[in-house]
Amino acid sequence: MCSKRQFDGLRVVLVNTRNPLNIGAAARAMSNFGFLHLRVVNPFELAFREARSAVGAAPLLAQAEEFKSLAEAVADCSLVVGTSAVGRRGPQHLVRDLRQGGRMIRKRLGRDRVALLFGSEKRGLSNEDLSHCHWLLRVPTREEHRSMNLGQAVAVCLYELAREGTAIPAREQVALARAGDLERLTSLLLGALLASGYLKPQLDSESKSRAPAPVEEKIRRLIRRMNLSAEDAELLLGMVRQILWKIKT
Amino acid sequence: MCSKRQFDGLRVVLVNTRNPLNIGAAARAMSNFGFLHLRVVNPFELAFREARSAVGAAPLLAQAEEFKSLAEAVADCSLVVGTSAVGRRGPQHLVRDLRQGGRMIRKRLGRDRVALLFGSEKRGLSNEDLSHCHWLLRVPTREEHRSMNLGQAVAVCLYELAREGTAIPAREQVALARAGDLERLTSLLLGALLASGYLKPQLDSESKSRAPAPVEEKIRRLIRRMNLSAEDAELLLGMVRQILWKIKT
Repeated sequence: MCSKRQFDGLRVVLVNTRNPLNIGAAARAMSNFGFLHLRVVNPFELAFREARSAVGAAPLLAQAEEFKSLAEAVADCSLVVGTSAVGRRGPQHLVRDLRQGGRMIRKRLGRDRVALLFGSEKRGLSNEDLSHCHWLLRVPTREEHRSMNLGQAVAVCLYELAREGTAIPAREQVALARAGDLERLTSLLLGALLASGYLKPQLDSESKSRAPAPVEEKIRRLIRRMNLSAEDAELLLGMVRQILWKIKT
Repeated sequence: MCSKRQFDGLRVVLVNTRNPLNIGAAARAMSNFGFLHLRVVNPFELAFREARSAVGAAPLLAQAEEFKSLAEAVADCSLVVGTSAVGRRGPQHLVRDLRQGGRMIRKRLGRDRVALLFGSEKRGLSNEDLSHCHWLLRVPTREEHRSMNLGQAVAVCLYELAREGTAIPAREQVALARAGDLERLTSLLLGALLASGYLKPQLDSESKSRAPAPVEEKIRRLIRRMNLSAEDAELLLGMVRQILWKIKT
């Protein structure tokens, strides 16, 4: 296997990772398999770039991008996939196993930017994190012992993505909406639902009225399930913007 | 995936491992993928059974077998495979990549006992160790960064061995929305777009104001492309109904 241009489309996103050694281990596996773009959201230690276990992955760590929120970290990606140890995550999310999901990610990597999310060692990804995902990926571990070490989970997922030596031709497909546009659509729709009385507002810490967090996550997931093209997302943004303006005047 | 009888044939053999944490990490990956028989040859610390990173793998570690020499550790195995980061190990040894080699190991596991060897973190397997092997297995890492972390190498090799067994369960698929519901949603959305001023109305033959036919078709197609589930369609119907009511009052 050689490092492939198409691997450039993947962003490995570590969310709330507690132990910098695990960031180092993830970086090493990324470098081993030729995926060189790491993003971290709120790492628990700022010194993560010095992670010792990153043998050979120092350049990759030095170029890692740091974000304050997951929404920002995935804004330029058009497919956002969360990893989960849990077999069933409730009916809101489609869970694919690594073989099947890996195939779908590879297909998309040729033309789109794809984010692959790994949660914290203790809790994995939160429900709020999951609401940003189009679907979930599960490594097929035993039921008796589901939960993997973070660095090992990253290694196994990237191995599967790199496993097919043969490049899969990028099919001529429509460009999908990027996560940033979907998040804007989510906000506008929430605004319209609050203004129309469909949702009851709560006051947040800054005394702004907003939807309760579980409702916000529900709407965010609904929007992701629609699997919108860039063009359709643009169309819907215009519609909801106008509707919101009309309700408020 | 469930733990399989045939996985019982594998012996993961760690040779001269220096860091007990790596033994723990190897044990955890073994437990994750259902390979439960660990052998250690000359571990550098006798207290390896307490390895902290072995979350969930304590029983496996407690049953690990300890040997003074590699020859003793593989004596009852009829296939001995060494892992190696190096592409070419001289002409003495056949090197197979993980996909091909993994297939051969799986074939043998049904009837024979197979040893899979991992060397020390620093040096890998020595020439003396390699002389006990029938052939070598190589994880397809990049030429620029061949050497893997021990725990990650174990995880990736065992994932490959378990990979074929991972049946993709027939998912319970969600019920899709019926056309009647989609058409109701289309009408309500058109109503909201007209009422909000997003669309300019035309008078039809019965002097009712409605969207021009091409626009109506465009919105209808947009709704169909979303591929909504019955549940999501219901949710959206409720939202648009409320928004329309609000605009009109």
